[in-house]
Amino acid sequence: MRDNLNVKGMRDYYPELMAKLNHIFNVWRKTALAYGFEEYDGPILETLELYRLKSGDEIVKQLYNFTDKGGRELALRPELTPTLARMVSKVYNEIQKPIKWFSIPRCLRYEKPQKGRLREFFQFNIDIIGEKDELADAEVIAVAVDSLKNLGLTANDFIVKINNRDFVSSFFNRYNIDEKNIFKIYKIIDNARKVPQSVTDEAIRSLSLNSEQIDGVYKYLSIRSIDDDSFLNENSEGSNSLLRLFEMIGKMGLENYCIFDPTIVRGLDYYTGTVFEIYDRSEKMRAICGGGRYNRLLQEFLGKEVPACGFGMGDVVLGEILDSKGLLPPYSKSIDYFLARISDEELGIMLRVASALRRDGKRVEYVYRNQPVKKQMAKASKLGARYVLIFGPDEVRNGMVKLKDMETGEETLKELSEYVRD
Amino acid sequence: MRDNLNVKGMRDYYPELMAKLNHIFNVWRKTALAYGFEEYDGPILETLELYRLKSGDEIVKQLYNFTDKGGRELALRPELTPTLARMVSKVYNEIQKPIKWFSIPRCLRYEKPQKGRLREFFQFNIDIIGEKDELADAEVIAVAVDSLKNLGLTANDFIVKINNRDFVSSFFNRYNIDEKNIFKIYKIIDNARKVPQSVTDEAIRSLSLNSEQIDGVYKYLSIRSIDDDSFLNENSEGSNSLLRLFEMIGKMGLENYCIFDPTIVRGLDYYTGTVFEIYDRSEKMRAICGGGRYNRLLQEFLGKEVPACGFGMGDVVLGEILDSKGLLPPYSKSIDYFLARISDEELGIMLRVASALRRDGKRVEYVYRNQPVKKQMAKASKLGARYVLIFGPDEVRNGMVKLKDMETGEETLKELSEYVRD
Repeated sequence: MRDNLNVKGMRDYYPELMAKLNHIFNVWRKTALAYGFEEYDGPILETLELYRLKSGDEIVKQLYNFTDKGGRELALRPELTPTLARMVSKVYNEIQKPIKWFSIPRCLRYEKPQKGRLREFFQFNIDIIGEKDELADAEVIAVAVDSLKNLGLTANDFIVKINNRDFVSSFFNRYNIDEKNIFKIYKIIDNARKVPQSVTDEAIRSLSLNSEQIDGVYKYLSIRSIDDDSFLNENSEGSNSLLRLFEMIGKMGLENYCIFDPTIVRGLDYYTGTVFEIYDRSEKMRAICGGGRYNRLLQEFLGKEVPACGFGMGDVVLGEILDSKGLLPPYSKSIDYFLARISDEELGIMLRVASALRRDGKRVEYVYRNQPVKKQMAKASKLGARYVLIFGPDEVRNGMVKLKDMETGEETLKELSEYVRD
Repeated sequence: MRDNLNVKGMRDYYPELMAKLNHIFNVWRKTALAYGFEEYDGPILETLELYRLKSGDEIVKQLYNFTDKGGRELALRPELTPTLARMVSKVYNEIQKPIKWFSIPRCLRYEKPQKGRLREFFQFNIDIIGEKDELADAEVIAVAVDSLKNLGLTANDFIVKINNRDFVSSFFNRYNIDEKNIFKIYKIIDNARKVPQSVTDEAIRSLSLNSEQIDGVYKYLSIRSIDDDSFLNENSEGSNSLLRLFEMIGKMGLENYCIFDPTIVRGLDYYTGTVFEIYDRSEKMRAICGGGRYNRLLQEFLGKEVPACGFGMGDVVLGEILDSKGLLPPYSKSIDYFLARISDEELGIMLRVASALRRDGKRVEYVYRNQPVKKQMAKASKLGARYVLIFGPDEVRNGMVKLKDMETGEETLKELSEYVRD
């Protein structure tokens, strides 16, 4: 009757799903901290202007935006990067560089819900701001790889596909292709790994390119490796940056996780150097993660370029992959101690023991209204109790309590003073 | 120049603030888990209808609501309880009772920002659904008290003020006061502890009550304790429930934290039994926490009353109190190891050691582009490094590395094999 009260594309995070998400969040957080990143967050509501600044009017179609009761145009954040730019720009001159921050923001997009895409999701973000060296790009990739490894995935499960936007643009520079066609070519390149060759051929034919330009596109797509002569001969800023990046990746021991892929270009005018995407090896899913270098991030705010790189990794595609591989442990409730009582005469001492155990961080439960001990023991099992303490009048009178180990079934008498301190 | 890009009443959670919030969230979470509560959450967007159901049209003024691109009336959640009711109603018949859930949702309200109130905030919520016994009410109060104690507050810092809505309504039942005036009287009672007696007198006079009714209001306000004859003589369902609640509070050892206060009534038609609010002892702030029993929570959804009790505790008032008492430790970045290198010849081995340390959960950093060791040591200090490992060509050639303890200044030579496993 009330089913229409669910908002389309939104999840209810029942304890089972929440436990899975918390597992993912904890691994993300732990991995980012190991690399020295500090956690931050922004408000979930930003001005619509902030997103227009970064992405133009196009973006407005894809987000939840509205005018508030004070007449302000606001939007629910579809991503954290514009917030990062706004926040960093306010403190940029005062704080130590490089800035290394991470966040796990809740984000919302007004998109058609489908496999791997929901209207509300969480996205692991890390950014290094103020460092231009490729070791920073490599570190960003290392955080992504380690996060996935720490979640149980291996080099057989996923691959980081890497390219460089400067390399792409200097490659095509020599062909005198106008800007409109360049963007179309980027789109064709980006699609090339997802569609049959014939589709790519047709798309290239449909552009008004001369034969030299067409040869250029095919030459580009034929580059297979950064060891190819066709790559090494480039000797551009971008190709050299890629070589140094792969050198750093090698020194970090990540060579089995990373591959050069000329079809990775990511978006239109945002990225400036390194770009990468992470895919599951079956490549049946959308990208798990996307990132790279965007040195123009702060330009709107600070009036100058500041080197910056980072990535975003959502919970939805990743969660589906982990689930399909059985890497999200099944959830069932568990507690450390269930306290049972024969009669309410023992309620006082039982509650004192509960309080002492909880103070020690133990998870403790009992029934509120007294029940036969058999029923209480059944309840203890259902709650996944590791131990049961049984408070009977005779034992309590003698300063004792019965401890039952729920794994072994063993019962022992314990001194109450082991549990309560006065 | 870009300052207008901040949305009014919203905070930017820079690492320093984020660390404080994470500290509060961790204590909340740990405390709820100790009592056997399971974590859940809902989407931040709900239908506007959900809030109208619970609170009528009045609520609409106080929230961020809008019509989405598909024509749906949506709202950003101002609290989690309606979401809880919606979610629980969908699974109520399948899951074990009592349901014990907690959450730390991000919520938004369209209110005038002021001390203790912001437009975006976090709120610790716990609920026990399906249990009518006062021991459940006492447990809810115990979770609130323990949370505050675990954050460093003592019985000298805060007080839980408790009342019972059934007690209040049966007290006034005998006076034949019409419904409109009863709500006004509740409002006067609620205000009585915040305003001078003369204001209360004037407010009572302004109602069209007969002299017997006026005497009733004064008689009610004069009740000081549940040991007073005027209280004990009531012998109503509500007064007896309060007596049992205080008995349970005593058995839990919380008597120093709790007091009966007849002026606590909380809202109009939501609560059904126990009501409580927690204040700092100076009473200069808004309530830290409010809660009680609301057995009609699921009525709209399930068509029947289901016993339920819980509380909400926001981060804003609490954060101000903790800050004012110095209970939120000052934040500064810290890491476990800073790795320094004499030359880039040592970069490879250094990165392998970094990787191994990080795999062990250690927080590790280094400079991306090489710098003189002196500069690197200064950087290590700034980052709050506990140890520095210095990679020099001579040491590395002999399979060694220098370890500096940044607290004692002591330097020791270590075998590299202690840090890297092959």
